[in-house]
Amino acid sequence: MKRRIIIGVMGAGKRASKTDVEAAFLLGKLIAERGWIVLSGGRNAGVMDAVSRGAKAGGGLTVGILPGGDARDASPAIDIPIITGMGSARNNINVLSSDVVIACGTGGAGTFSEIALAIKAQKPVVLLNHTAASCQLFKSIDGALVHTADSPEKAVQIAESIVTL
Amino acid sequence: MKRRIIIGVMGAGKRASKTDVEAAFLLGKLIAERGWIVLSGGRNAGVMDAVSRGAKAGGGLTVGILPGGDARDASPAIDIPIITGMGSARNNINVLSSDVVIACGTGGAGTFSEIALAIKAQKPVVLLNHTAASCQLFKSIDGALVHTADSPEKAVQIAESIVTL
Amino acid sequence: MKRRIIIGVMGAGKRASKTDVEAAFLLGKLIAERGWIVLSGGRNAGVMDAVSRGAKAGGGLTVGILPGGDARDASPAIDIPIITGMGSARNNINVLSSDVVIACGTGGAGTFSEIALAIKAQKPVVLLNHTAASCQLFKSIDGALVHTADSPEKAVQIAESIVTL
Amino acid sequence: MKRRIIIGVMGAGKRASKTDVEAAFLLGKLIAERGWIVLSGGRNAGVMDAVSRGAKAGGGLTVGILPGGDARDASPAIDIPIITGMGSARNNINVLSSDVVIACGTGGAGTFSEIALAIKAQKPVVLLNHTAASCQLFKSIDGALVHTADSPEKAVQIAESIVTL
Repeated sequence: MKRRIIIGVMGAGKRASKTDVEAAFLLGKLIAERGWIVLSGGRNAGVMDAVSRGAKAGGGLTVGILPGGDARDASPAIDIPIITGMGSARNNINVLSSDVVIACGTGGAGTFSEIALAIKAQKPVVLLNHTAASCQLFKSIDGALVHTADSPEKAVQIAESIVTL
Repeated sequence: MKRRIIIGVMGAGKRASKTDVEAAFLLGKLIAERGWIVLSGGRNAGVMDAVSRGAKAGGGLTVGILPGGDARDASPAIDIPIITGMGSARNNINVLSSDVVIACGTGGAGTFSEIALAIKAQKPVVLLNHTAASCQLFKSIDGALVHTADSPEKAVQIAESIVTL
Repeated sequence: MKRRIIIGVMGAGKRASKTDVEAAFLLGKLIAERGWIVLSGGRNAGVMDAVSRGAKAGGGLTVGILPGGDARDASPAIDIPIITGMGSARNNINVLSSDVVIACGTGGAGTFSEIALAIKAQKPVVLLNHTAASCQLFKSIDGALVHTADSPEKAVQIAESIVTL
Repeated sequence: MKRRIIIGVMGAGKRASKTDVEAAFLLGKLIAERGWIVLSGGRNAGVMDAVSRGAKAGGGLTVGILPGGDARDASPAIDIPIITGMGSARNNINVLSSDVVIACGTGGAGTFSEIALAIKAQKPVVLLNHTAASCQLFKSIDGALVHTADSPEKAVQIAESIVTL
């Protein structure tokens, strides 16, 4: 029996733009439709919430790795809240637990840390709708691991090509 | 929509007794048959592996919170491996993420730490097939949170009475 | 150059008894007088605070591994507050960073978890002023690692015999 | 009694350039001469090792927050090794425990994660000898927290102006 693929989707919380939230919802739906599990930071805000709602709309399963000490902060679209109680140190768990990490929107400091931790852990990363500066910088750290995409469809295609290697 | 109940089952790895392993398998099956999710330390050994196999036999979903930095160590019966890379510090995540913690067999130092961390986090704990000394000691820390059971059926009944409060 | 010995002293916070607090102060002083560093959970309460004050009275250096996300909760007698922001998961850092762990008083669930995590990590543990039940239970897990003492002087003697092996 | 200032210095391990290593040594010396404590990732490589050796040359005290499960990997110039056993998740402890974070050299993925985690935790950051692209990107996340310097002297001056506010 092969284990189901887990795609981590990272992005801003309440500061997420309308574009990021819409992209995240579509990402979640597309990932779920491929039978993959969506993993996120789990909170009830921005990209984390939208990708989980999208995944549920696509009939998928959602895991949220929460920074707080209980599930109060979880998006209602999270099926399995993992309660870490360890704040941003949980970002490393997000990336270690994902087969591919998609950073949806340039995001803030939290998302940046997740991209960097993913590269550190040698996980493939897809930067979706990032600024040219962000793409260039992360590619300069590890050009082989870092991919860029300008649509959710393209991001999921890249993820698919990675996980079916 | 109500979230599915998560029952954490803790116990020894390779040092688990035959009794512990058989009890863990039955526990997993009974938990899954109630529609609950089984969460464990996730490794491919002892109670962690047996409870996950039991849950799959009961048609359930299994989550493993792994101490290592990748999924190589995971039981094949784990559906969702959460990779923490943080060794025994992940024991706190095991208990925070569970609605009820069942310690299957007196176990070793790792299981003891999980029982203690569960009490610290004010999580209900069921001690299944523990020695009288272990039961007494943990009850002396918090008599209201700590329950004892001498069969998997009884342990799951206690868990049920707690989560349906 | 040899590194200075680090002795971890664990025990209850605000629920610590007067006996525990007095023993912790003396422990800290005796440890500091040997030129060793005192490491604790760092909070401004009970055993953690008392052992740090004792160490400062003995001219020593104190490290506190704090559960919270900033230093507000630290005992004023902590020289070096390590801010983990990871709650009780930091208990594992306490024991990994100590050459010997002394549990001062039977304590509560947090102290129990630290004793268990220490044994799991194969660290020598001294149980100071514990109940017979607690001593027996932990010795049953690993009799070679677990020592008992009925005075701070005796606890420090045991630690000394371990670190000078 | 006021607590001593802790300056976190982050940077590459074995991939550190000669320039980074020399800058780190001088940084450590300058920090120690001000009576501040140097905190780093603690390993016996690159910036971590050099800044600790510099601090010892300046008569200072050094703390290393180690990713591994024991002290074998620690720089001999670390006075106080904190053993986390949690890999890169310890990067968050590095920044939470520092009053100011100095990133010495553009570094690799680990250093990037530390800069991002520092900004997330609202810690002041000094980028020493970073590329223009790196400076610009991090300033775009939080212009008020992120400072840039082109010499160790300047970096320590900035840190001084921050901690004496």
